[in-house]
Amino acid sequence: MYDILDKINCPADVKQLSFDELKRLAEEVRHFMIDTVSLTGGHLASSLGVVELTLAIYQAFDLPQDKIVWDVGHQTYAHKILTGRKEQFHTLRQYGGLSGFPKAEESEYDVFNTGHSSTSISAALGLCEARNLSGEGHYVAAVIGDGALTGGMAYEALNDAGPIKKNFIVILNDNEMSISKNVGGISTYLTKIRSKPGYYKMKARMERILLGIPGIGRPILGALKKLKDNFRHLLTSTTIFEDLGFTYFGPIDGHDMKLLRYVLESAKRIQGPVLVHVLTKKGKGYRFAEESPAEYHGINRFDIESGMPKSSSQTENYSLAFGKELVSLAEEVPSLCAISAAMPIGTGLSDFAEKYPERFFDAGIAEQHAVTFAAGLSKGGYTPVFAVYSSFLQRAYDQLLHDVCLQNLHIVFCVDRAGIVGEDGETHQGVYDISFLSAMPNMTVLAPANFTELGQMLRYAATEHQGPIAIRYPRGSKQAVTENAPEFKLGVPHLAANGKDACILAAGTMLKQALEAKELLENEGLDIAVLNLRTLSPLDEETVRGLAETYPLLVSLEDGVRRGGVGEAVASILTRTNQTAKLLIKAHENPVVPHGAPALLYEKCRLDARSVADDILKKLRG
Amino acid sequence: MYDILDKINCPADVKQLSFDELKRLAEEVRHFMIDTVSLTGGHLASSLGVVELTLAIYQAFDLPQDKIVWDVGHQTYAHKILTGRKEQFHTLRQYGGLSGFPKAEESEYDVFNTGHSSTSISAALGLCEARNLSGEGHYVAAVIGDGALTGGMAYEALNDAGPIKKNFIVILNDNEMSISKNVGGISTYLTKIRSKPGYYKMKARMERILLGIPGIGRPILGALKKLKDNFRHLLTSTTIFEDLGFTYFGPIDGHDMKLLRYVLESAKRIQGPVLVHVLTKKGKGYRFAEESPAEYHGINRFDIESGMPKSSSQTENYSLAFGKELVSLAEEVPSLCAISAAMPIGTGLSDFAEKYPERFFDAGIAEQHAVTFAAGLSKGGYTPVFAVYSSFLQRAYDQLLHDVCLQNLHIVFCVDRAGIVGEDGETHQGVYDISFLSAMPNMTVLAPANFTELGQMLRYAATEHQGPIAIRYPRGSKQAVTENAPEFKLGVPHLAANGKDACILAAGTMLKQALEAKELLENEGLDIAVLNLRTLSPLDEETVRGLAETYPLLVSLEDGVRRGGVGEAVASILTRTNQTAKLLIKAHENPVVPHGAPALLYEKCRLDARSVADDILKKLRG
Repeated sequence: MYDILDKINCPADVKQLSFDELKRLAEEVRHFMIDTVSLTGGHLASSLGVVELTLAIYQAFDLPQDKIVWDVGHQTYAHKILTGRKEQFHTLRQYGGLSGFPKAEESEYDVFNTGHSSTSISAALGLCEARNLSGEGHYVAAVIGDGALTGGMAYEALNDAGPIKKNFIVILNDNEMSISKNVGGISTYLTKIRSKPGYYKMKARMERILLGIPGIGRPILGALKKLKDNFRHLLTSTTIFEDLGFTYFGPIDGHDMKLLRYVLESAKRIQGPVLVHVLTKKGKGYRFAEESPAEYHGINRFDIESGMPKSSSQTENYSLAFGKELVSLAEEVPSLCAISAAMPIGTGLSDFAEKYPERFFDAGIAEQHAVTFAAGLSKGGYTPVFAVYSSFLQRAYDQLLHDVCLQNLHIVFCVDRAGIVGEDGETHQGVYDISFLSAMPNMTVLAPANFTELGQMLRYAATEHQGPIAIRYPRGSKQAVTENAPEFKLGVPHLAANGKDACILAAGTMLKQALEAKELLENEGLDIAVLNLRTLSPLDEETVRGLAETYPLLVSLEDGVRRGGVGEAVASILTRTNQTAKLLIKAHENPVVPHGAPALLYEKCRLDARSVADDILKKLRG
Repeated sequence: MYDILDKINCPADVKQLSFDELKRLAEEVRHFMIDTVSLTGGHLASSLGVVELTLAIYQAFDLPQDKIVWDVGHQTYAHKILTGRKEQFHTLRQYGGLSGFPKAEESEYDVFNTGHSSTSISAALGLCEARNLSGEGHYVAAVIGDGALTGGMAYEALNDAGPIKKNFIVILNDNEMSISKNVGGISTYLTKIRSKPGYYKMKARMERILLGIPGIGRPILGALKKLKDNFRHLLTSTTIFEDLGFTYFGPIDGHDMKLLRYVLESAKRIQGPVLVHVLTKKGKGYRFAEESPAEYHGINRFDIESGMPKSSSQTENYSLAFGKELVSLAEEVPSLCAISAAMPIGTGLSDFAEKYPERFFDAGIAEQHAVTFAAGLSKGGYTPVFAVYSSFLQRAYDQLLHDVCLQNLHIVFCVDRAGIVGEDGETHQGVYDISFLSAMPNMTVLAPANFTELGQMLRYAATEHQGPIAIRYPRGSKQAVTENAPEFKLGVPHLAANGKDACILAAGTMLKQALEAKELLENEGLDIAVLNLRTLSPLDEETVRGLAETYPLLVSLEDGVRRGGVGEAVASILTRTNQTAKLLIKAHENPVVPHGAPALLYEKCRLDARSVADDILKKLRG
């Protein structure tokens, strides 16, 4: 039971509250959020940091007429709780439940779906120009973190917004963090602003005072602005944002709702683009999250009192197995470098970064730059390993193609979170990488079925291979077999189980489902061979032809979209030889995979062992 | 015969010259370049602008030990002429001849291949860190235009370079242009710097003077720098580049070789990242190019005296046909907006921009932002049409997927320069779009075979369709048939010619080759049906099944890569039905298509009518 929170069903309700009530509401929201996320898991630290900002936005703006676009979007838990979704909040990130990100389908208060970083200013600018064209009078704002500001498209949008003539508001939520500590020149720069707030604050204060005088403030402010513009080099220093054409307010305390509201209302009065620089504390209000915001960025279920996670699946997973192997390789191979795009912990690179700091590079949330930077390192004689989540590698499609593949550079891409990732949902499912990587020239794609194979492949990729090579592996620890795998050889699959009625060509950890499906089909009197493909692209044509001659049915099985995937590569090869072998392609038929527990999602996508077995049966007998 | 140029075979030769000789060399290079490009066509204006800069770089640096990465790379004609490729320069952009872009395979002086914009700082930073790791002492510099600076990845790289401790040089070649006039806040900002050079120049001059005093200058400069850093807000204004961590020199006259050399040598002495801001005139030294730099950006053969193009293929092509249709649609459909990424002329949007300026948006060289901006416009109730070259749309892969397709937004992508573009070569061939667009959820891909169909499809896409839709069409005016096409209906192909022995499923303008191949095969006694697919993705399964039942052989024919293309989509459908129809997939088997005349490239790729006919014959009889 919550005194105030229980009465809040929409932002308009928040607008009625006094600042005293707002403070109590902020506490209640935090309490409710921590309570729930301790049971569901989720992105806690970011959302804790913006509770006051969320409330101040509700006070300063009129939602849903005014449009607020939240960057990345995992900072919107308070927003979800306060926009009529409190009762469903316990279903967070579960199949059929609330998404962990803004979702227009869920609420009219979610304006634009965001899961990846740095998109909010572009989307908001589009909404803003639509408003300008239609002559409507509502406000449009983007809320973007300082981490997201290292992503190039945020800058593209700032650059484009600079010259616009109508009101457009960017709220920079500066918590000095990406998921991990923020990097780069812009981060150092923001630190400077934070550490010398006097000058910058002065401007906001002056404008606030002036704007408080009705009828007089505006013209004087205009005159002062003009003055400033002409003598800016002599009188004042300007921020990067002002250089790009924005009016700058800040930096202001992001937990002071009174001040926030005041400044946001001032920002609404500006013709042209405004940037409001807000300082928040990631994890605010929950001791453990404040102390270790990176660990509480995305967290599994935890005990509130102790802050300890309730399940410790962290002991063994592909990311950690990769990181371990990389550290041991680094000793042997002095040319080995590791690159992260702001996710050294998530991708398992922490140990490497600690042991080989001079060979570790964190590029920021900047996958495009990270890939072409790797290309430069490779040209310079080094062997870069870029560890990156599958869905974020999408950001660097052109750099992969243009800078790496066309030049046939030796770079190892360790594609983490490949296939279904589960609770993060459709924006994070890594189901496209096989398709887009396979179409690129010179690119080789491998997929291990267990940790041992991952180690073998990483060693091969770093020390023997020439040209670009990607190793894709899933989130977590799913493994088909734990014992040692036979030696890895490029292009050579491993026959994991004999059979004669059909052969399943399993990609990576789908080997588990394949072997289970084989068992299920034994009950039906069928004898199914199972092949661990290991090399997904390019497929060896001779091998595929041989398989087509040997088995009456081939079944490709992959955790990726059907179009452009392994199954279609097999089909493509079979057209060359007019082989009449039947082929069953098992892949994601619908490339939009919602959020939910992975096991359930595999079922829904008919990629669990039972569905695979049923479909094989149907194909063989139907 | 050239006095000086004839004796220059490498940058070291240039190093020996006096400034007087350098000036004459600059003139000779321009003369030679204009002479040759007037016969070959090419990117003239950018290269004319950087002749002095190229020579000054040769003087200040030691090539090839020092590494210079040229952004976009079509500005490297002088560089090519001066690095032993003068004799082959007349083969520019021709099959087997010199590439129009830097090519490591051509010369050790071409460090990194660049064709797309904004990659140079990332690549150079990678080379720089490789140097730092290896302990070598050479210099690394990126030369980037102010247009390329609107691309987000350039900013990602600047951000990442800010904190580095060793020398790293970025030369900003500021000619106030992208291909067309530059846009956005950064452009306005650079104009401000240019118009108030006094203050900024002062710093460079002071540093130059101080550095000239051996043993004394450096420490004083260090002390001054420190002072400046502490009191910067009071004493001085800083540039964006300094805010990001760079030492800034400029703006300086990019045609004053003495000054350029002096400043570049000063830049070499700085520990940490340096930005040298150079002002150049695009088209410098050739009157017509100076006056109309956009027209001389990429130009066909022209008459030197009059500046007039020798062939006027500009009268009819897909870009212009698109632009014309869009303007007429805009009158009927008030919600229609058009977006360009710095290429309003190339994509045919000039008329629209002129007639409907409030509905036209130039996002800068910023495809990522352009796509998500379009998503915002669409959410705001408008119908954006983003006209973009196929190979540049690659930059926005993630935004297409994450912001547009997952949200199923109604946006029209007019994918120009799809398929072989010819002389611009491998970085510009638009052969990947079918593959990557087809794998995305909710995306529809159309391809017209002539201008009439393009008009029909554009109208359908803008006024009837829901969700994201792409229309792909080639560079130039290739058409299969000129008469009116039958009414367009989504998913319904058009039987362009009857036949019984096989059916060619032609994608877009490949219909021309298909019809010609049909004729060739008539001589062999074969009767081939030809289908104009029109809708490339998703393919209608029933239709494909019906075709497989009707014809003994299906032949898919597309100007795109095989992996993930239309042919594999057909193969994929055939696996569902156990149909025994043979399928011949005609697509790019090697996705790296070099530069050369399109007709020749189609032959080399076995996608000309003769090869298609031969392969059909082989398949039917072999």
